[in-house]
Amino acid sequence: MKIALLGYGTIGSGVAEVLSVNRESIARKAGEEIEIKYVLDLRDFPGDPIQPKIVHQFDVIAEDPEIEAVVEAMGGVEPAYSFAKASLLAGKSFATSNKALVAKCGAELMELARERGLNFLFEASVGGGIPIIRPLNTSLSADVVEEITGILNGTTNYMLSKMSDFGSDFDEVLKEAQQKGYAEADPTADVEGDDAARKIAILTSIVCGEQVNFEEVHKEGITKISAVDIKYAKAIHRVIKLLAQSRRCQDGYCAMVAPVMLPKSHPLYNVDDVFNAVFVHGNVLGDGMFYGSGAGKLPTASAVAADIVEIVKNKGRDVMSGWSSKVHTLSDYRKVERRFFLRTTDSREAVEEAFGNVEYICLPDVPGEMGVLTGVMTEAVYEEKAAALSNILQMIRVE
Amino acid sequence: MKIALLGYGTIGSGVAEVLSVNRESIARKAGEEIEIKYVLDLRDFPGDPIQPKIVHQFDVIAEDPEIEAVVEAMGGVEPAYSFAKASLLAGKSFATSNKALVAKCGAELMELARERGLNFLFEASVGGGIPIIRPLNTSLSADVVEEITGILNGTTNYMLSKMSDFGSDFDEVLKEAQQKGYAEADPTADVEGDDAARKIAILTSIVCGEQVNFEEVHKEGITKISAVDIKYAKAIHRVIKLLAQSRRCQDGYCAMVAPVMLPKSHPLYNVDDVFNAVFVHGNVLGDGMFYGSGAGKLPTASAVAADIVEIVKNKGRDVMSGWSSKVHTLSDYRKVERRFFLRTTDSREAVEEAFGNVEYICLPDVPGEMGVLTGVMTEAVYEEKAAALSNILQMIRVE
Repeated sequence: MKIALLGYGTIGSGVAEVLSVNRESIARKAGEEIEIKYVLDLRDFPGDPIQPKIVHQFDVIAEDPEIEAVVEAMGGVEPAYSFAKASLLAGKSFATSNKALVAKCGAELMELARERGLNFLFEASVGGGIPIIRPLNTSLSADVVEEITGILNGTTNYMLSKMSDFGSDFDEVLKEAQQKGYAEADPTADVEGDDAARKIAILTSIVCGEQVNFEEVHKEGITKISAVDIKYAKAIHRVIKLLAQSRRCQDGYCAMVAPVMLPKSHPLYNVDDVFNAVFVHGNVLGDGMFYGSGAGKLPTASAVAADIVEIVKNKGRDVMSGWSSKVHTLSDYRKVERRFFLRTTDSREAVEEAFGNVEYICLPDVPGEMGVLTGVMTEAVYEEKAAALSNILQMIRVE
Repeated sequence: MKIALLGYGTIGSGVAEVLSVNRESIARKAGEEIEIKYVLDLRDFPGDPIQPKIVHQFDVIAEDPEIEAVVEAMGGVEPAYSFAKASLLAGKSFATSNKALVAKCGAELMELARERGLNFLFEASVGGGIPIIRPLNTSLSADVVEEITGILNGTTNYMLSKMSDFGSDFDEVLKEAQQKGYAEADPTADVEGDDAARKIAILTSIVCGEQVNFEEVHKEGITKISAVDIKYAKAIHRVIKLLAQSRRCQDGYCAMVAPVMLPKSHPLYNVDDVFNAVFVHGNVLGDGMFYGSGAGKLPTASAVAADIVEIVKNKGRDVMSGWSSKVHTLSDYRKVERRFFLRTTDSREAVEEAFGNVEYICLPDVPGEMGVLTGVMTEAVYEEKAAALSNILQMIRVE
């Protein structure tokens, strides 16, 4: 099968590398050789063996009937969306690692593919190399998924791990992460939770079968997490992780991205550094977890290349159940029940009047305030009770 | 689609329960309703709603053209094998949770299915509810798998967890596990590693594409693990787990089941109690891990029911790449390089003459012996060097 690659950046060149390094075993599993015929990029790569395949016009690819699949690794909604649509309309299957494209236009593109017996696959768009889209689509099909909670952003997980290991503050760790290339010069999309919100929107869409708009996901980043918060977390034997979480409630799913304190018994407790993981609770499966490299050139390319193998093995047959264009209005995330940790300078009397029985955490080296661990309540009830206190310095959700 | 269930024990009745509880969502994902028409069992179940579907003769099922898939949850090679073969020859797809059947006859039955455009699926045969067969088949298809290491037996993992938590000895914990129903009256298949050997043989077969005979897997159980060994493991910040491991070496794969000491940094370190997990290292993916319930009625039934959904979605089309009947002769497991822990009453001089630089672990409450942690070497070299010592009380492999 002849394919075209859109974009020869980190992921694109990774896909070319994987198809080359594992050419033989991939051909055996796919049932035929996979050959990159074109690589679309604005740049030229003189001296690179890829140069003879470089084209600068998408039309060359769209109009070549030999090309059966197009693989996109450019990122961003445009021109990726136009290229995806044009590819499918020209009868070519499409694989992408682009979460922005999938979160915004996934339903439409899957529909286009389905109508034509083509495939639109996007395993690498969530969790990098971790197999999660396909397992949700084919392995958890007998379950009603009641919860899906992921550590889906490697940058913030790296930063929180370092803050926890060395007691450092946010700004310090951000600088280090930028120096190491783990965080971008403008880290907003990572540290404010946008990236994770897109990913949990995609996972929730698969799970509920309808389009979840990522803008609706409640979102809190890690910019307000301090070294002091981490001290408190340690005192109650927990770690702080930026979780992207979706839970099934009576009227659908509610989703949020926020820092959460996790106990040692939670399968995500030990997911450190740039690793990602997705925890799933199915109504019959019980607890499951998928762990791996959430980013990086070769792990992500491994997932894209596996999509290509699926496309080869499933010519003329759409394999993704995916989701419909019907919008799934997320339920209010404040309906979820859990415990809450807060730091306050209010008196114990005031705290108990508001919350009843609580646990106190007092740190000798953090004078003038105290930590409070509430009982289980919905977030709506928490907000109501918390309004009675006059000075809450911090609130972090607790599992 | 009308199906028949073979066996109405724990797993069989679990499958019926899952198909009933999640009837609606399963029908949506499969594209049609799934109805159990017959249940084959020697027993009758008076008063149980299943009773009208009970049949005692397999022929009723084989001869009914309405039955498109047969689901087996009886265990053991016979009569499961005869029923599987007869079902496939009668044009019916087959799903099973039976590791003994798959390890022994998987290649032949997959071949039969492939020739007829049917499916022979067995997700639940390894790791219970954990999706692992399908991900290896479809998500890791672009990788050359270099290592697959599983905690694949819940009974022994429960026992080792309890030994570690409470410092108890093997016999004591076995008795408790039997009382709780986690270990059978004859625990041999679990504690001697036979169960795990069948499972790692299946996983290795998928990974190498050829038939791996489980009898060839080198096998050591946990019967010789004592409370003292666990003390030493703790002293070097490790846990002892019964690992089923397959590694790629120059001339194929080598596989073993044995207790191994794992460091905190290993993804399997925290897999406790009856949970199972499978660690995979792909040459491009890097590290990945799948975690979940390795046994139990509903988790296992969830995997079987997902196989049924795949069968419905893939009528006339075989989805498993599986493996051929060609036998893959396992490579000598003694070629694998690692560190070794041993307990000895020999002198330090003798130890250093044999192994060169080592680390010593001396436990004040275990007098008259010492623990030794060697450098990295192949197991063949270890055996050669160890032969020079006169009294080795214990050897445990170390990662």
